[in-house]
Amino acid sequence: MSPGITSTEVFAQRMARTREAMAERGVDVLLLSVGLDLPWLVGYHAMPLERLTMLVVPREAPATLVIPRLEAPRVVERPEIFSMLPWNETDDPIAVTARLVTGVGARTVAVGDQMWARFLVDLLAHLPAVSWVRSVEVLGPLRMRKDDAEIAALRAAGAAVDRIAAQLQAGEIPLVGRTEAQVSADLSARILAEGHDVVNFAIVAAGENAASPHHHPGSRVIRVGEIVLCDFGGTMNGYCSDITRCVHIGTPSADLAAAYAVLLEAQQTSVASAVVGTPCERVDAAARDVIAAAGWGEYFVHRTGHGIGMDAHEDPYIVSGNTLPLAAGHAFSVEPGIYVPGKWGMRLEDIVVASGDGPDPMNRVNHELVIV
Amino acid sequence: MSPGITSTEVFAQRMARTREAMAERGVDVLLLSVGLDLPWLVGYHAMPLERLTMLVVPREAPATLVIPRLEAPRVVERPEIFSMLPWNETDDPIAVTARLVTGVGARTVAVGDQMWARFLVDLLAHLPAVSWVRSVEVLGPLRMRKDDAEIAALRAAGAAVDRIAAQLQAGEIPLVGRTEAQVSADLSARILAEGHDVVNFAIVAAGENAASPHHHPGSRVIRVGEIVLCDFGGTMNGYCSDITRCVHIGTPSADLAAAYAVLLEAQQTSVASAVVGTPCERVDAAARDVIAAAGWGEYFVHRTGHGIGMDAHEDPYIVSGNTLPLAAGHAFSVEPGIYVPGKWGMRLEDIVVASGDGPDPMNRVNHELVIV
Repeated sequence: MSPGITSTEVFAQRMARTREAMAERGVDVLLLSVGLDLPWLVGYHAMPLERLTMLVVPREAPATLVIPRLEAPRVVERPEIFSMLPWNETDDPIAVTARLVTGVGARTVAVGDQMWARFLVDLLAHLPAVSWVRSVEVLGPLRMRKDDAEIAALRAAGAAVDRIAAQLQAGEIPLVGRTEAQVSADLSARILAEGHDVVNFAIVAAGENAASPHHHPGSRVIRVGEIVLCDFGGTMNGYCSDITRCVHIGTPSADLAAAYAVLLEAQQTSVASAVVGTPCERVDAAARDVIAAAGWGEYFVHRTGHGIGMDAHEDPYIVSGNTLPLAAGHAFSVEPGIYVPGKWGMRLEDIVVASGDGPDPMNRVNHELVIV
Repeated sequence: MSPGITSTEVFAQRMARTREAMAERGVDVLLLSVGLDLPWLVGYHAMPLERLTMLVVPREAPATLVIPRLEAPRVVERPEIFSMLPWNETDDPIAVTARLVTGVGARTVAVGDQMWARFLVDLLAHLPAVSWVRSVEVLGPLRMRKDDAEIAALRAAGAAVDRIAAQLQAGEIPLVGRTEAQVSADLSARILAEGHDVVNFAIVAAGENAASPHHHPGSRVIRVGEIVLCDFGGTMNGYCSDITRCVHIGTPSADLAAAYAVLLEAQQTSVASAVVGTPCERVDAAARDVIAAAGWGEYFVHRTGHGIGMDAHEDPYIVSGNTLPLAAGHAFSVEPGIYVPGKWGMRLEDIVVASGDGPDPMNRVNHELVIV
């Protein structure tokens, strides 16, 4: 699923580091199913369906992939890393999984963050004495630090959405008279055309709708004289893009232009602050302080950013209270916003990778409020 | 999200029936997050992200939607059905949810099947005395019986994929010399062009790859003389389509044609058996018996079908051991297959709704192995 980025050797290294992290945290067994922990660790995506796929990783015994027999032919086998245990349509894969857990006498079990709760509910009944923790405690710190191949993948995805943002800024994506939903569909098509495998989201929010940070694009027609916020991204070769740019149709009011100048300064200050060793919450504060000093503090209603990689949102979160120091290879968004309910909203977002040479932006397209 | 199908009145009826089902099953609180239980019950889709959205439905107290403040503007408020409790970026929404559960003295709590396990792990720590069950125990029997508007939505989605299957059978979708992945992308584009909002899957499997029921379309080039299995569907207006047709490039061998004749008889016999009152496992057996009698039994490696509605797979499952009798409004796939590893595979699938007037197929396009 991530051709060119991963090899059996890479997976073997990841498995070894995973077992070290399990030992450090006192986790006896790791259980992975739906979600991106599993492909990160062994290269296989579980189908998000009711038939259970579960990788069982004991700290000190070989790993086993419990998998529906009809899906077994999809798996690239890596016998150095895991063996396969296919189950038939009338078998009970939860019982099979529970036996693998009790077989190694596990007391503390970590489960994949995005595994479906139905499987955990069923496991609770089989394993009443187990203490449950989240897989992110084991894998979060490992997945957070991207290697060179992963950074290259993030850079390629970033360059692809930069090209679309440039099309938007050049007026090549029609806006006036179209609905937000139509423009969103247009962005989605371009996300695929520029090489992504999947569209993750394409928010288009015009005028007062831009004050809703996660606005669902709808039948609202875009008009002259409005700001249009576009926040879009997808997955390319296993890694995510995510960018936000705003354009204005015609000359903006002086007030709106002044607010955007504050936003731009906040975002650039925050990006510049993202050097190795800086706590994540300081990167958040760097943006927040600029916006607050200009009097817009109450209108910046969300954290400054989120980590990104195979997941669109993952560690590290750029948020007040997160004292984690940035390390080389951490990849995250820097996306402050100002939202005035009923009137307008604006957000400016790049993906940035912390490196020994300073902050390394994956997005470099024009940061101004371009007039179209 | 399902315009035209649902109104506040419909949601109010569903909530009342949900509370009745909770009482019958001794469930004190229902917790719904990511997944389709939530939009079925109140019309809102939780974003599949790390910020918790959770509908808390006590059996005998008003329902509350715990929601990230920045997503609150997305919600269509329905104060007759639930109130909103927005949380801020540095709040702990798990603690908020746990307080709502303990506030009504709940002992048995049902959680959404597709909720992320991370939220349940966190809730376990807050609510050590609670007994956990799956939401499907409460909502499965309700969601399973489609009303007239839901059946109309399934019929519209079915007609859309029928049109694509007809294009395939008419030779309008080029096959020879293209890769499976290219044909899959073509099918995906047509799924959207025919009115779906989302593509759920587009399996294309040629020759020996068709022996893998959930084959992931890849770089395999399609050649003359092969069978090509296409299994595709999407979501339209909130409800799913799902169809499988096989075509053959050039005249098939006598053996393969004979096997397909068995498959066709098995599928049609199974559809005909799907009358109200028949246990699901009998509908499975109806197909299986035909295939086994012809000597192909060991090559039919999966159940005959799955329920379908807002979820691509849901109750009722057409599988050995499921004694549930079909009722009017049950919607499900009938999709037997024959898979000879290393050689070829074939599957034939329609969606069928059980009704007082007999089985009502949502797919009516040619069932033969069309030569293209």
